[in-house]
Amino acid sequence: MYYVLLSGGSGKRLWPLSNEARPKQYLKLVNRETNSMERCSMLQRVWDQLEEAGMAQTTVITAGREQVELIKSQVREAEIAVEPEARDTFAAVLLSCAWLYSKGGASEDDYAAIMPVDPYTEGSYFETVKSLEDVMRRSGAEVGLMGAVPGYPSIKYGYILPGEREDGWIKVKGFAEKPDEDQARELMGQGALWNCGVFCVRIGDMLKRAEGCGAPKDYEGLCASYDRLPRISFDYEVLEKAENLAAVEFHGYWKDLGTWDALADQMSTDTVGNVVLDESCENTQVVNELKAPVAVLGVKDLVVVAAQDGILVTEKSQSARVKEVAASFDSRPMFEERRWGTLETLDSSRYQGLSTLTRKIHIYDGMTSSYHFHKNRDEIWTILSGSGELILEGTKIPLSQGKAVCIRKNQRHAVKAFRDFEYIEIHVGASVGNEDINRITFEWDEIELSHIL
Amino acid sequence: MYYVLLSGGSGKRLWPLSNEARPKQYLKLVNRETNSMERCSMLQRVWDQLEEAGMAQTTVITAGREQVELIKSQVREAEIAVEPEARDTFAAVLLSCAWLYSKGGASEDDYAAIMPVDPYTEGSYFETVKSLEDVMRRSGAEVGLMGAVPGYPSIKYGYILPGEREDGWIKVKGFAEKPDEDQARELMGQGALWNCGVFCVRIGDMLKRAEGCGAPKDYEGLCASYDRLPRISFDYEVLEKAENLAAVEFHGYWKDLGTWDALADQMSTDTVGNVVLDESCENTQVVNELKAPVAVLGVKDLVVVAAQDGILVTEKSQSARVKEVAASFDSRPMFEERRWGTLETLDSSRYQGLSTLTRKIHIYDGMTSSYHFHKNRDEIWTILSGSGELILEGTKIPLSQGKAVCIRKNQRHAVKAFRDFEYIEIHVGASVGNEDINRITFEWDEIELSHIL
Repeated sequence: MYYVLLSGGSGKRLWPLSNEARPKQYLKLVNRETNSMERCSMLQRVWDQLEEAGMAQTTVITAGREQVELIKSQVREAEIAVEPEARDTFAAVLLSCAWLYSKGGASEDDYAAIMPVDPYTEGSYFETVKSLEDVMRRSGAEVGLMGAVPGYPSIKYGYILPGEREDGWIKVKGFAEKPDEDQARELMGQGALWNCGVFCVRIGDMLKRAEGCGAPKDYEGLCASYDRLPRISFDYEVLEKAENLAAVEFHGYWKDLGTWDALADQMSTDTVGNVVLDESCENTQVVNELKAPVAVLGVKDLVVVAAQDGILVTEKSQSARVKEVAASFDSRPMFEERRWGTLETLDSSRYQGLSTLTRKIHIYDGMTSSYHFHKNRDEIWTILSGSGELILEGTKIPLSQGKAVCIRKNQRHAVKAFRDFEYIEIHVGASVGNEDINRITFEWDEIELSHIL
Repeated sequence: MYYVLLSGGSGKRLWPLSNEARPKQYLKLVNRETNSMERCSMLQRVWDQLEEAGMAQTTVITAGREQVELIKSQVREAEIAVEPEARDTFAAVLLSCAWLYSKGGASEDDYAAIMPVDPYTEGSYFETVKSLEDVMRRSGAEVGLMGAVPGYPSIKYGYILPGEREDGWIKVKGFAEKPDEDQARELMGQGALWNCGVFCVRIGDMLKRAEGCGAPKDYEGLCASYDRLPRISFDYEVLEKAENLAAVEFHGYWKDLGTWDALADQMSTDTVGNVVLDESCENTQVVNELKAPVAVLGVKDLVVVAAQDGILVTEKSQSARVKEVAASFDSRPMFEERRWGTLETLDSSRYQGLSTLTRKIHIYDGMTSSYHFHKNRDEIWTILSGSGELILEGTKIPLSQGKAVCIRKNQRHAVKAFRDFEYIEIHVGASVGNEDINRITFEWDEIELSHIL
């Protein structure tokens, strides 16, 4: 049995903490199952649980290119199937199966269970996922699903409608999208299940579908032909057309942390960061990623989130609407995490014809940047702390606290951090930020060599 | 008749917008009386009204040294009596009268009406203030007061208790501090008045009190002996002991904008700055001085304020408690306004033994800094926009966009802005920010001369 964690999401639902560079599954806001005081991301929590269940070895994470560094920084041992472009879940599932087939050691007759990366659940969830293999064999279903037995008539989840009950599995009669409260109560009465978004498929079936779209079934080949796959969801392309679906019931705790009110309820503390939450407040959580304090007085049922990208104050029941509001903001992410460190935007200004951008960069010990140049901007760097070195046009320049260097247009440069390396970089030019980065292949030692020569 | 605007305040009540460097009376949040769409500060609004009433020519503003540049930047023509140190209102009133006597052309027999700088009121208020002179002459009172006829039984104001009614004025029987609602209703029934904090005195009487404390009555002399004056409020030292007080009634609109709920109700719009206030919100005002957006969804009766110093979310009835909360914050002001421009703190960090501070500085066209040096820090400047020049150890260096300069410890320097001058300065050293500024007397042209020689 093989597993896929599907890591998508435009990152707007948990604005202002999440953004394209840091979707919600990477925010370190939940607690580890093993240690309720240690904060981790949804991805890290789920990965811990997969390891605990002995599933991590046969799991691949499928994600867009922009998430690769972040995944590696949070789960070093993760294998990643990289989507060549965002093409919805049907294409992502085919890609995942091609990866398992070409690189993961799976055969066409193996099964793969595809799971969302962000359920908030307990260990028995993963045992239930494992049981899908057996259900698939015994039921002969095209797709196996997993449904959580509802604890209350939720209007936020989709439901799986049950048909006949077999031994350990249920025939699926259909689906109901988010119902109103009366409908939800009726669905519960009928034994309907919350749709956990997990589906189990035979890998060979998926590879055949890839070939049906004119794409090869091996991973590299499918990557190259990725644009031949239709831009459609797995639900729409497969589930809604399938005639033979089986579901297993999951009886444990399960929650989709897709909105601030759901996530706030799972936070290990009511406040994160520099916050004064007055005693007179009720049922209120506050997350502050800024340095300046947040004071909250006399409110109830609110979530308050302050981050570089913006500030949110929302009544909990309204928090699902954050996505709409956030979509209207022009959004250069203000805080970005990378494999090698972090970038924090302190100021960006536009003047006649030219722009400036001031960022604080932290590079982890021993990490190096690419060797690159900028065609349309100068950069002025001032070292705040630690030590490192700059390669500037092949010349090695040691960097230490208080040192400043100017890197002019078209000057090739790379930086290496020795220890606790932080600096302020100021971009001045026609293009600033993550644009206009022209990389040159190099090995750090070769550069040193060319300098010595 | 002469007038004094008393400008005090530690600046905590309207945190996070107000701070020591920018007390609430200077925040540009209210509208001008003449143009409801143009935002101005409380000081500017009152000054406009004094001009309209023909009183500005004989008005002095009394304030601490740290407010002088701010007052000048908002009211260029203002005359200012500068408190040598903060010594409460009794000393400030004596100083004001000494200024009027020594520098303002007043005689000992003239009267001065002392007013708070931050009432939110209308033109007739100032006509009523003028009438205090006549009341003083006719009543022979020691102090003349002004009381607003209450529109409702407020529990937030102090009350003046009325005695006999004379022709156009009222004998004052006593005072009641902030009452509860039942008491307030009873006070209204008795014809008690809201105490507007205005008092009219004979200038000679105040000068005599200064002499009674062993201080001279002229302004310069009183400044030099300011520490001989007791540290006590005018209310306590004068009003509570006086046997003969007269009050005039003011019948117009008057409000003390001392808390966020009071101020929020007078804002010309519900939002200031980059704000999305969702339609589902009720009775909520949002002020955002940051660049990143603030989104507010589904709340009611709140004030939300986001500024460099912090973020406040408060239910309106709780907003008076902001002062206590803010007092607990360690507060290097994050945004400061000066005569010559503004300073915005972007980042401050502490490392082993050394600190760094990153600020964005804007200098108004034509303005210059002092000639100074720092013993314990280096500064790296990067010009973002405009043009100016730096004098560094007597040498003139032209500054333009993208240029960077390092100013090392003990190097004397001054800067002059020609046009739209903005730069980032990074301090690295044992002391950063507004500490460790060692000024040297100089004239810009002399420096140039020494350079040419």
